[in-house]
Amino acid sequence: MRYRLYNAKILSPNFESIIDGELHIDDKLISYIGDKLLSVESNDYDRQIDCHGDLLIPGLKNSHTHIFASFGRSKSDNLPLDRWLSEVIWPTEAKITGDDAYVLSLLGMAENIGCGVTGICDMYNHEIQRAKAASEIGIRIALTDSTNDFGGVDRIEDNYSILNSFDELVSYKLGFHAEYTTSKQLMQRISDIAHKYEEPIYVHNSETSKEVEDCLSRYNATPTEIMDSLGLFDYGGCGYHCVHFSDIDFEIFKKHDMVAVMNPCSNLKLASGIAPYYRFVDEGIKTAIGTDGQSSNNGNDIFREMYLTSVLNKVTSSDASKVNPIDVLKSATLGGCQCMRINNCGTLDVGSLADITVIDMTKPNMQPMLNPIANIVYSANPSNVKMTIVNGKILFEDGKFTTIDYDYVLKESNSICKRLYSL
Amino acid sequence: MRYRLYNAKILSPNFESIIDGELHIDDKLISYIGDKLLSVESNDYDRQIDCHGDLLIPGLKNSHTHIFASFGRSKSDNLPLDRWLSEVIWPTEAKITGDDAYVLSLLGMAENIGCGVTGICDMYNHEIQRAKAASEIGIRIALTDSTNDFGGVDRIEDNYSILNSFDELVSYKLGFHAEYTTSKQLMQRISDIAHKYEEPIYVHNSETSKEVEDCLSRYNATPTEIMDSLGLFDYGGCGYHCVHFSDIDFEIFKKHDMVAVMNPCSNLKLASGIAPYYRFVDEGIKTAIGTDGQSSNNGNDIFREMYLTSVLNKVTSSDASKVNPIDVLKSATLGGCQCMRINNCGTLDVGSLADITVIDMTKPNMQPMLNPIANIVYSANPSNVKMTIVNGKILFEDGKFTTIDYDYVLKESNSICKRLYSL
Repeated sequence: MRYRLYNAKILSPNFESIIDGELHIDDKLISYIGDKLLSVESNDYDRQIDCHGDLLIPGLKNSHTHIFASFGRSKSDNLPLDRWLSEVIWPTEAKITGDDAYVLSLLGMAENIGCGVTGICDMYNHEIQRAKAASEIGIRIALTDSTNDFGGVDRIEDNYSILNSFDELVSYKLGFHAEYTTSKQLMQRISDIAHKYEEPIYVHNSETSKEVEDCLSRYNATPTEIMDSLGLFDYGGCGYHCVHFSDIDFEIFKKHDMVAVMNPCSNLKLASGIAPYYRFVDEGIKTAIGTDGQSSNNGNDIFREMYLTSVLNKVTSSDASKVNPIDVLKSATLGGCQCMRINNCGTLDVGSLADITVIDMTKPNMQPMLNPIANIVYSANPSNVKMTIVNGKILFEDGKFTTIDYDYVLKESNSICKRLYSL
Repeated sequence: MRYRLYNAKILSPNFESIIDGELHIDDKLISYIGDKLLSVESNDYDRQIDCHGDLLIPGLKNSHTHIFASFGRSKSDNLPLDRWLSEVIWPTEAKITGDDAYVLSLLGMAENIGCGVTGICDMYNHEIQRAKAASEIGIRIALTDSTNDFGGVDRIEDNYSILNSFDELVSYKLGFHAEYTTSKQLMQRISDIAHKYEEPIYVHNSETSKEVEDCLSRYNATPTEIMDSLGLFDYGGCGYHCVHFSDIDFEIFKKHDMVAVMNPCSNLKLASGIAPYYRFVDEGIKTAIGTDGQSSNNGNDIFREMYLTSVLNKVTSSDASKVNPIDVLKSATLGGCQCMRINNCGTLDVGSLADITVIDMTKPNMQPMLNPIANIVYSANPSNVKMTIVNGKILFEDGKFTTIDYDYVLKESNSICKRLYSL
């Protein structure tokens, strides 16, 4: 399809300015960004869209979630991380079939698309079903296994081979759940696989102080240190949460050019702490932003995460000048691409993949429009998402999903939960 | 007008359960709540609305804002409270005319109505213009002056008389800006007025640690203590922010049955701190929730405030079990009525004022629907607001304002800001 989006505001590739003009999409790629065309051949386009001043930004990325976790939404809101996992999440997960995971993945992806998210970095089991859901809906996804001592490692190499040639929107990354759920022997085995394929490792890291303390007493090393010592980061990687970091941990992330993924809502809700985003930025470490799963957040609202990534660091540093909104928007877009290891969808450039979030700037929360980028980070919410475009395809427009049978997803999701909880 | 809202879910007056049925509105009041009627005379209603399972809750209240502060949105995001006030807000406020305040109030009220807010507790100058805007739009408002050493006190008694008989939706409360901007002599004069009319006092209180430290070195007393010692709270009152509270401050609030208003976003963004919401609740002190102005928040999104009121207290207490979502929803609805001193619009009861927020529960962020109340506090955002009803009148429905010429407001607001900042 060929689209012309005109009367638009378009975020520049350096995130520092906004141009008034138009953007064209030809199949999967951005084919034109520039001034308004004065003469237009209408049959050059399948559709011409008057943006009425809406702002086009690189697609927002949710760089850490567990996409089918909505079965746990509002089901156990008052437990700390360890009890929440062992008493609610793990026992319920054990009952989830592949078909359940597929339907709940559709629901989770719908939530993300409706919030303007074009790409997801997703850790869970039921890898094939998640890939199938993403491929059918048309959202970009980097899948990781949640391998740990309870299982998963035997599937890694098959998944690597199958899912990296499954669909152009789908990639499969090596990873495991976390140090505290994975023995040293198993981590070594995963490191060997990472070396064999020369791939980075995606893993939860230093989410709670208990996790770090337990690891220190186990190995006399932080989770980052022990994982690094096993060679797990020799080809880089991503750390999810990164709340409780030592000076050495920062050094290790820097040395291996790793990505630290912030998940502020989940860290607040599980009382885990507040990650030092500004320090990662100051140290020149790559950062991205994610929501974590719906059972610990309890939403998949990337706007709420952007807001908190900024303002929480103002309050922890007792310094309102900390954190530039441009950095935060970069983390939520370009940083997400770095996390997914995709080079050409983090900025709006001619030739880049057409992964675009269209923001309605006319709603009162975005007005007066004195600083559109700050407005996105500090004032926007999902009601400002006008359109979500992935790979040149419109997946969401004016509140409607174009590729999802949403009534079916709604009915099936509730029926699955009734069975899971014997309601 | 007589409305029948059927196929609805309706929050019970104790906030603990939800009934499936219908709610009727007759003029300004709720006239029926109960099971679905089996036979209906269609000419008994001006309009019958199929809610398709939407949830009806008591109207959300924004219990502290500065309604026309959007002129400062994203204009100075990186300054602490004292510099932000003295370098940006106060110099710009000085240029704002009554006409500007009226137009920007319409914009601020639109933002609130679009977020499901039915009532506002609002502190600023330009009282008449704010009252005019609220009355025209049809939103409920309790106005307070921002009197301080720079002026305002001479207007208080006239405003009290004029604005308390202006419109049934408008009330005028006694108040002033804050201890740190108001001399002891002036506070005494305001206390005398409070005693004359036997009225409570609305005031910013203990927002920053600097404010408390300065007050301690000035009077050897906290702001709450010095204001109490002047008799300002003899008829009760509301404290905005209440971040840095001593044991004695809690006692004073309890003794005078005062309301503590939480403003978590603004307190994070200005690096002021995190208010001890759970302690107010544990002590049995009344609580409400507000956004503060758009120049310090930078939105007027009451859902974001509800979320943070809860989860910030989980992380500060390192206890994920702290804060019950039912308490938070009560603070944002019933607590707001207590703040505005209105007895009959905080719960959905027959005979109560028809101030109602209708929440769309079908969007993916509210599904599966395992716990609707927790979903509202932890997962909802303004895209879930289907309808905002005040005094029996629908002000907002499906993204459209019914009583605001929004195109005019948008154009004028931007033109005002161009003048204010010489853009």
